[in-house]
Amino acid sequence: MTNSAPVGAAAPRMARDPADRRVTVIEVGTRDGLQIESTLVPTARKIEIVNAIIDSGVREIEVTSFVSPKAVPQLADAAEVLEGIRKRPDTYLMALVPNVKAADRAADTPLDGGLLLVSASETHNRKNLNRDIVASLAGMAATADRLRAARIDVMAAIAVAFGCPFEGDVPYAQVVAIARAYADLGVDHITLGDTTGMATPSNVRGLLRALKAALPQVEFVLHLHNTRGVGLANVLVGLEEGVRRFDACAGGLGGCPFAPGATGNICTEDLVYLLQESGWETGVDLERSIGVAMMMEETLGRRLVGQVMRAGPRLKLHAVDAVRTAQG
Amino acid sequence: MTNSAPVGAAAPRMARDPADRRVTVIEVGTRDGLQIESTLVPTARKIEIVNAIIDSGVREIEVTSFVSPKAVPQLADAAEVLEGIRKRPDTYLMALVPNVKAADRAADTPLDGGLLLVSASETHNRKNLNRDIVASLAGMAATADRLRAARIDVMAAIAVAFGCPFEGDVPYAQVVAIARAYADLGVDHITLGDTTGMATPSNVRGLLRALKAALPQVEFVLHLHNTRGVGLANVLVGLEEGVRRFDACAGGLGGCPFAPGATGNICTEDLVYLLQESGWETGVDLERSIGVAMMMEETLGRRLVGQVMRAGPRLKLHAVDAVRTAQG
Repeated sequence: MTNSAPVGAAAPRMARDPADRRVTVIEVGTRDGLQIESTLVPTARKIEIVNAIIDSGVREIEVTSFVSPKAVPQLADAAEVLEGIRKRPDTYLMALVPNVKAADRAADTPLDGGLLLVSASETHNRKNLNRDIVASLAGMAATADRLRAARIDVMAAIAVAFGCPFEGDVPYAQVVAIARAYADLGVDHITLGDTTGMATPSNVRGLLRALKAALPQVEFVLHLHNTRGVGLANVLVGLEEGVRRFDACAGGLGGCPFAPGATGNICTEDLVYLLQESGWETGVDLERSIGVAMMMEETLGRRLVGQVMRAGPRLKLHAVDAVRTAQG
Repeated sequence: MTNSAPVGAAAPRMARDPADRRVTVIEVGTRDGLQIESTLVPTARKIEIVNAIIDSGVREIEVTSFVSPKAVPQLADAAEVLEGIRKRPDTYLMALVPNVKAADRAADTPLDGGLLLVSASETHNRKNLNRDIVASLAGMAATADRLRAARIDVMAAIAVAFGCPFEGDVPYAQVVAIARAYADLGVDHITLGDTTGMATPSNVRGLLRALKAALPQVEFVLHLHNTRGVGLANVLVGLEEGVRRFDACAGGLGGCPFAPGATGNICTEDLVYLLQESGWETGVDLERSIGVAMMMEETLGRRLVGQVMRAGPRLKLHAVDAVRTAQG
């Protein structure tokens, strides 16, 4: 499953104009973050948070999910949240829309893009969606039609794309086959979900190369978790492979039911910091992004794992007599 | 200070034989980690920990520091710890040896390499060593002579090489000048200290290129902190620039007095995981490395920030009915 060349030794390919430095940060905290929290966040507070996200300069937001409210009560207010948001002209709101029923619920909201969802492994898909992958894909045409009828863009996500906690490594060919099925539905924006933090520099590079070779017309988005500490390292590899859209959660919200105590999604403000300090343009204001993480922390009443929200930007200087120094 | 090309867009240079996949992980937890802890760890426990580090496959260890015991009481037992360690034939023990007095104390111990130390910024150096950089460098010949007389290799470190919490960005030329002064003393192993977590993909790349151009005969070691979450991303950039030695702390110990609550050094077992999953050979056993982090956690009686110690290796699979699944 891993490449034969060690990461860092091979020259990266460039997928597009090297002069274009724009990278899009997609905030998914109110969806992937809040769905795993035991706290039920009031609808009005969610709207406040999304408005603060917009004010920070983030333009694309995966706000919520139209899954069954019984399955995920944390997101039962999907429609109300979407309707309450103060959109700017360039704001683009997304949500998971896993089936026709969900598309029906989403149809009359201000949703811009609806994400179809399937898992890359049979076991995870059956556990998550209660059917096999082929049946899941077969059901998607109707969901896509319903979304398009409501003038909502059809997008898609592939969960456990970098490895499954039940099955282990997932063959790249399996992910390519699913992406091709999505592409056949007219989808050109596919999110690769590192659902339980099994992405590594090697398989990020390997899978992206396999996908780009098979489906050069599709834009692949990375949805990385930091479960094993390598989330932002994987971002650098994604950038080298031409990825220009990354999902992230304010404060590093999110998690993995298989790794209690492990961290969740890559952290929005840490990602913004990394990108800005690496010469990329995100349009996001770092201080305001930290402010969103602070709001999340206050809302949930617990300390989040974001680093930049603790340490601050790097050029916030200190008075000489403020503290003792470190040795190395 | 930042490069004009965004990181990820430019093809990395290769500094050595691309077929050589070996990378050395240097454990610095009992030095850079313990010096900032309020807990005084008993000497016998430190020895047990270093022995466990050796058993994990780590060959190079910065065990302690011969700074004044009054300044850093946590490391007052430097000689006793070094004498108690069960060295293997390939074990290499290092310590900070900042002055002649320290070299006198180190002379009769089993120390293999002594690290000289200076800060890259005047303000940090004056605060840390109570003199200016030129005076610090001038005093080092005597320390180096004393070490060599005791058959201890002379190595060196540069603190705040990627930015100073008082002065901000440090010019690359300033770091190059210090490295040149070290090289003039015959030093060919220089550690670049990211003391307060100000290293970024851009300045890691930029500083390494400046140093390699000026001093191609010197091996540069990266000592990175994860204060702002980008420590392992910086490792990938270091690898691309030819660095093959990295300092790290078990469990992510260490810290920065300027960022209370921020994480410390990059975490040894997370680094080992990253390297192994990227096709590099470290010689370190990941499970045993996690074991060392657990020992540190038990010793200090508090939860450490390492990720892989919580989540486990990525192919440790789960039973299908063990837990509910995640959505994305």
